[in-house]
Order: sequence, then structure tokens, then C-alpha cells
Amino acid sequence: MPKGQPDAVPEDGLTTRQRRNRPLVVVHTGVGKGKSTAAFGLALRAWNQGWPIGVFQFVKSAKWRVGEERALRVLGDSGEGGSVAWHKMGEGWSWIQREAREGELSNEDKAREGWEQVKRDLAAETYRLYVLDEFVYPMVWGWVDTAEVVEVLAKRPGTQHVVLTGRNAPAELVEFADLVTDMSKVKHPMDAGQKGQRGIEW
Amino acid sequence: MPKGQPDAVPEDGLTTRQRRNRPLVVVHTGVGKGKSTAAFGLALRAWNQGWPIGVFQFVKSAKWRVGEERALRVLGDSGEGGSVAWHKMGEGWSWIQREAREGELSNEDKAREGWEQVKRDLAAETYRLYVLDEFVYPMVWGWVDTAEVVEVLAKRPGTQHVVLTGRNAPAELVEFADLVTDMSKVKHPMDAGQKGQRGIEW
Repeated sequence: MPKGQPDAVPEDGLTTRQRRNRPLVVVHTGVGKGKSTAAFGLALRAWNQGWPIGVFQFVKSAKWRVGEERALRVLGDSGEGGSVAWHKMGEGWSWIQREAREGELSNEDKAREGWEQVKRDLAAETYRLYVLDEFVYPMVWGWVDTAEVVEVLAKRPGTQHVVLTGRNAPAELVEFADLVTDMSKVKHPMDAGQKGQRGIEW
Repeated sequence: MPKGQPDAVPEDGLTTRQRRNRPLVVVHTGVGKGKSTAAFGLALRAWNQGWPIGVFQFVKSAKWRVGEERALRVLGDSGEGGSVAWHKMGEGWSWIQREAREGELSNEDKAREGWEQVKRDLAAETYRLYVLDEFVYPMVWGWVDTAEVVEVLAKRPGTQHVVLTGRNAPAELVEFADLVTDMSKVKHPMDAGQKGQRGIEW
């Protein structure tokens, strides 16, 4: 279990310190469990570093990730570690005016609104870690243009780490990302008729 | 993204409620990132349920997982959610007398001591979620007998969920476990000479 040892030293003209603080784009994809849970696990490390964390939940139901949300809110409010801002598409995003939220915004519109906010926050360097939970789906469905996402991430200023989760991450995103893990399903209890259960699935 | 829908209803004579509360053995294996981070992400859900959580870190260095440890300790001490007990092999385990710890305990001895404590806690139903971080290695190295681990897990009383992490999980364990995810490396920045960095690797 070697820690932090690269296979080779690159000829990129960077110092070790610069290489240690290079902003990363991380993708958790694959059909197995653990894509989002590992992203929230990373958020614990970011919190410990005192970094501001922005979570953008690109899922329909506001009930998802209730455990992670409560835990990260308690951590963010603890007076130790970093701050945590938690944004939910399933509630129509907090920054959208109530009238619009209660109106006719489609999920496609909401996903685009979320991405527009992420772009604004990246430009303003609002957070140091972004968890774009399930954001791969709007890309897969063509709601958000993958080429634009890659371009915006490539040009983001400062030291902002971005984690994106979801099955079937587009090849263009995988090609661009620094760290990509594929979570493969070896065995899942639902295959054996097990119901999803609290404390495990949410 | 269907939630909690099994492919088939099993003929096991259990009620839905019983099936929802079935204790699980979860394995995170594979050479990619995210095995332990996803385990600690699961701990956030367990904490939110108010469950007592026991973490057993079967790694040599006490410096590993400092971010996760601090976050879970703050959560455990917050007065909300469940309690968290964090045990480190890298410090010679807290329950072992100081003289023994500072003596000649090999890593193999320490790994076995950790497993003995896990057995005692399972028998006493001390925790509701066990994170046995990197515990796959002592099994792979033959320090702890995989057949015994499977037998103890199979006979554990009550509703105790157990998550085990580490590369190359033995086939016998994979066969027995309820949920197994293989984290595969698609791309890792260290391949490109990137150094491990704070907030991401620890």
C-alpha cells in the first residue's frame, strides 16, 4: 500500500508543491454501488482541510442522500473544518425564485439551471471542492453539452477540485478527467430480492 | 435511477420489513480508488440513522484517514446521529496494554488482535455498522483465516452490518458477501506523475 508515490516524475516543469496542489477532475462511474458514497467520503477529507465545499445534487428526488446531507451540514456548522453548501435539484434549486420553482420548470431546465450555477461558482471560485452528484446523467441525456462541461472545467481558475458521479460517463469526460474510477457490480443484494434499506441505501 | 426495486420477490418467507432490515456484509475491492472513501460514505448514512459505528483501521500508519477520522469523531460527538468508535492498528489498538503495544507486537499479531476484538464486539452486538478498513489484506496475507471470518460473520447475532475493504478480496469472502463492488482504475493522476495531495488522498 504505497502512499503518494508516482510511477514516474513528469517533465512538466512544475515543482513538487505545485504538483501536490494541482486541481483535479474526478469521475466516479460504472453500474456498481459506491459512486456517490465515495464522492461524499472525499468531501470528508476536504472538510478536514478546511475547504469550502459545494454539493450539487442533480437528482429528481429531494429525499436522496438525506444521511450524507445531514452529516455534511452538521460538519459544516460545527465550527471546525470547512463550510458546506448543499444544493438540490429535487427542490428546484434554492437560488431560483419560488414562482419559477413552482411553475413549469422541466427536469431538463432544472439540470441546465444547476450547471449555470456551477459555472458561476467556478468563475467566482466559490468552493474548493465541488460534488456534482449524478451530473453525468444530464450529459448522457444531452441536456447539458459534454463538450461545454469539459471546456469550462479545463478553463476553471485557481485550485478547484471537481467530482462528478453517474453511470456511463461520456468518453470525452473520461478522456479529460484526471482520476476516473469505474465501480463495477460484482454482486448486489437486490439481485437476490433484497429490498433497499435505510442506513445502507440512504 | 429506480430506487430500492428488487428484480424479483424471493420465496424466502420473509416480510418486506424483515427484508428491509437484513444485516449485510459489504465488500469494496478492486485496484481503483474509492474503496475506503465509499465505506466512510456509508458510515454517514449509518450515523444519520443513529446507529453506533465501529471503525477498525487495519493499516500500519496511524496517519491514514485523518480526514475521515476527524469528521466521524465530530459527528459522533455532535449529540445528533449515532456514536462513533475509531480503532487504529497503526497505534497498536487502544484496548491493548501500553507495555504490550510498545513491545514486540508484529503487524501480524496486531491484525489478529484487531480481529479478536471485532469478534468480541460482534458477539456483544456493540455496533450496528462495522467498517473493517483494509481488513482484506490480513486475509490475503494469511494472517487471519478467511474461512473463520466467513463463519463468524455468518453466525453474527442481531442486525449488524459489516463493510470490509481492500484489494483482491478472497473468493470465499466474495462468495459469502451480500454486496460486492469492484472499484476499477480507469485513470489515475499518479500514472501521469501527479503527487498524492491533501484533501484528495488523505
